[in-house]
Amino acid sequence: MGGDHGPSIVVPGVAQAALALPGVRFLLHGDQVRLNAELAKFPAAKAVSEVRHTDKFIASDDKPAQAMRRGKGSSLWNAVESLRAGEAQACVSAGNTGALMAISKLILRMCADLERPAIVASWPTMKGVSAVLDVGANVQSDAAQLVEFAIMGAAFHHAVHGSERPTVGLLNVGSEDEKGHEEVREAHAILRATSLDFDYRGFVEGTDIAYGTVDVVVTDGFTGNVALKTAEGLARFFSQEIRSALTSGPLAMLGALLASGPLKKMRARLDPGRVNGGPLLGLNGIVVKSHGGADARGFASAIRVATDLARSDFTAEIDRNLKRLTALAARDGESPSGVESQGASE
Amino acid sequence: MGGDHGPSIVVPGVAQAALALPGVRFLLHGDQVRLNAELAKFPAAKAVSEVRHTDKFIASDDKPAQAMRRGKGSSLWNAVESLRAGEAQACVSAGNTGALMAISKLILRMCADLERPAIVASWPTMKGVSAVLDVGANVQSDAAQLVEFAIMGAAFHHAVHGSERPTVGLLNVGSEDEKGHEEVREAHAILRATSLDFDYRGFVEGTDIAYGTVDVVVTDGFTGNVALKTAEGLARFFSQEIRSALTSGPLAMLGALLASGPLKKMRARLDPGRVNGGPLLGLNGIVVKSHGGADARGFASAIRVATDLARSDFTAEIDRNLKRLTALAARDGESPSGVESQGASE
Repeated sequence: MGGDHGPSIVVPGVAQAALALPGVRFLLHGDQVRLNAELAKFPAAKAVSEVRHTDKFIASDDKPAQAMRRGKGSSLWNAVESLRAGEAQACVSAGNTGALMAISKLILRMCADLERPAIVASWPTMKGVSAVLDVGANVQSDAAQLVEFAIMGAAFHHAVHGSERPTVGLLNVGSEDEKGHEEVREAHAILRATSLDFDYRGFVEGTDIAYGTVDVVVTDGFTGNVALKTAEGLARFFSQEIRSALTSGPLAMLGALLASGPLKKMRARLDPGRVNGGPLLGLNGIVVKSHGGADARGFASAIRVATDLARSDFTAEIDRNLKRLTALAARDGESPSGVESQGASE
Repeated sequence: MGGDHGPSIVVPGVAQAALALPGVRFLLHGDQVRLNAELAKFPAAKAVSEVRHTDKFIASDDKPAQAMRRGKGSSLWNAVESLRAGEAQACVSAGNTGALMAISKLILRMCADLERPAIVASWPTMKGVSAVLDVGANVQSDAAQLVEFAIMGAAFHHAVHGSERPTVGLLNVGSEDEKGHEEVREAHAILRATSLDFDYRGFVEGTDIAYGTVDVVVTDGFTGNVALKTAEGLARFFSQEIRSALTSGPLAMLGALLASGPLKKMRARLDPGRVNGGPLLGLNGIVVKSHGGADARGFASAIRVATDLARSDFTAEIDRNLKRLTALAARDGESPSGVESQGASE
């Protein structure tokens, strides 16, 4: 029921996903009258869906705390609950992000050993798609959390974007060891000292995101959110500028007409907001946030992300790397975040 | 002598600036043989320049601490020193940013009452040009520093981009009062409570930078640097994509040819790296950093920024607002950063 359009994009999204992903079945939580009306129009969705009625919904402007206290029995709550109950293997929602995060943490709890969840964005680059995280689940992150984001992001890129051994970079204001604040320097020291299922490449800068220098870009949720939204804003600015440049005169308009196919394809490639499906990583269960404004095709792509994660050994990979990190820290006689003094003294 | 090209772009840059800015004269610090060779080619520059020879230079990879200890007598040092001595009213350098910052702080000192310097970027937007700061002088900023950045940024926008009463926003991950970390919430509370020479509009998000929602976007140097470089990377990605889209087939190539004028103009407008001239704000003197890779035209635009600042009442405006802030804090019986408890309890 969430997002700007509710069932009118969710059901056709399910229909598209059903054709592309045979074997996947759907529980649709929400108003049965509206859902059944949409399902009647999309037999491909109807054939693989079961409706779970509720007439309670979380509004897009409800605060997370409100949603947690009063959200029980809402469509969002029930969708997450069906994960916990083992009825579903993944949950996709276009609803209120803060509420989805809060209710998911409450119902599913964090994976053992993980401190904080992260939202990951799939970001189009010159070389393909990079995972950037955290893009908004947290407003501050210490070194231990940044290291966890690296582990989760690498497992995600491996599961969804198919890299064999993902390359990972830590977002900073320069590439030298002494650059940046204490948290990134500490995380850098930990990642350099630890052998995990990915290839740690050290610090990267903002330009490296679009260049695709690494598969996974790790940062705190404040910086990641600002970077993502800055890029989304610039992509829209670019769309507007190209439209106005190409309608600035008869020659330009003819040119635009001739070049319209490749230009349109390019525009879709550039906006990091266009790759839909941002998983909430670190929970005991797979929860994927679809953009509130996404269309049916966008919602289908969020379903694909959820399916890829559910079919991968994503959770086991995170677990394996966390254990390795803990073992290393134990061997060195300190907790993973105990390298603090080393970072600070640089 | 700094930047990727040294005198070969600085001297023609001076020539361009001299034509556009009658009455401005130049002291050129560096190797007299190379400088005089260039000046011989550009009579417009020669007519308004005086060469101050030194054969000592700071390298682009020298650390700031090294530059401070060993930089005395270098071209960069002498340029800043000529400001302090009152021989020059503004200094423009394409050299090592860290060294320029460190040497400027050492020689010029901070303005009374200001805690930390900031680097400001002039960022092209849908509505014009916004000032974004700090983009890299600091890696962390507390609430009091963010408030200072707001004051400096507004005075800068007024002096260089001509806004009568600049609008100012604080970069955050959402627009509600309770969003973000403690530092931004505190700064928000201070700015809301204080009447200064600008119009404080509250929190803005990353998308708002390109939209041009406010004239001045205030953020810490870590986030600002990442946002700026993320946008620069995306702008280059965009250039590459548009080139490849427009050469993808004979029709597209013909289209590109017809539309090439407006497309080229647009490309130049989009890259925040293209508006050259990033002043180091907060010092007792006007120091402007030109991009190391800038061409003569770029260097001339950095000279224009320096001239605009030198001819404005920029420093007096900052001073006036700082005094008002201090007066307000005194009236409330607390220091400007004493609103902490208010921010944290939200």
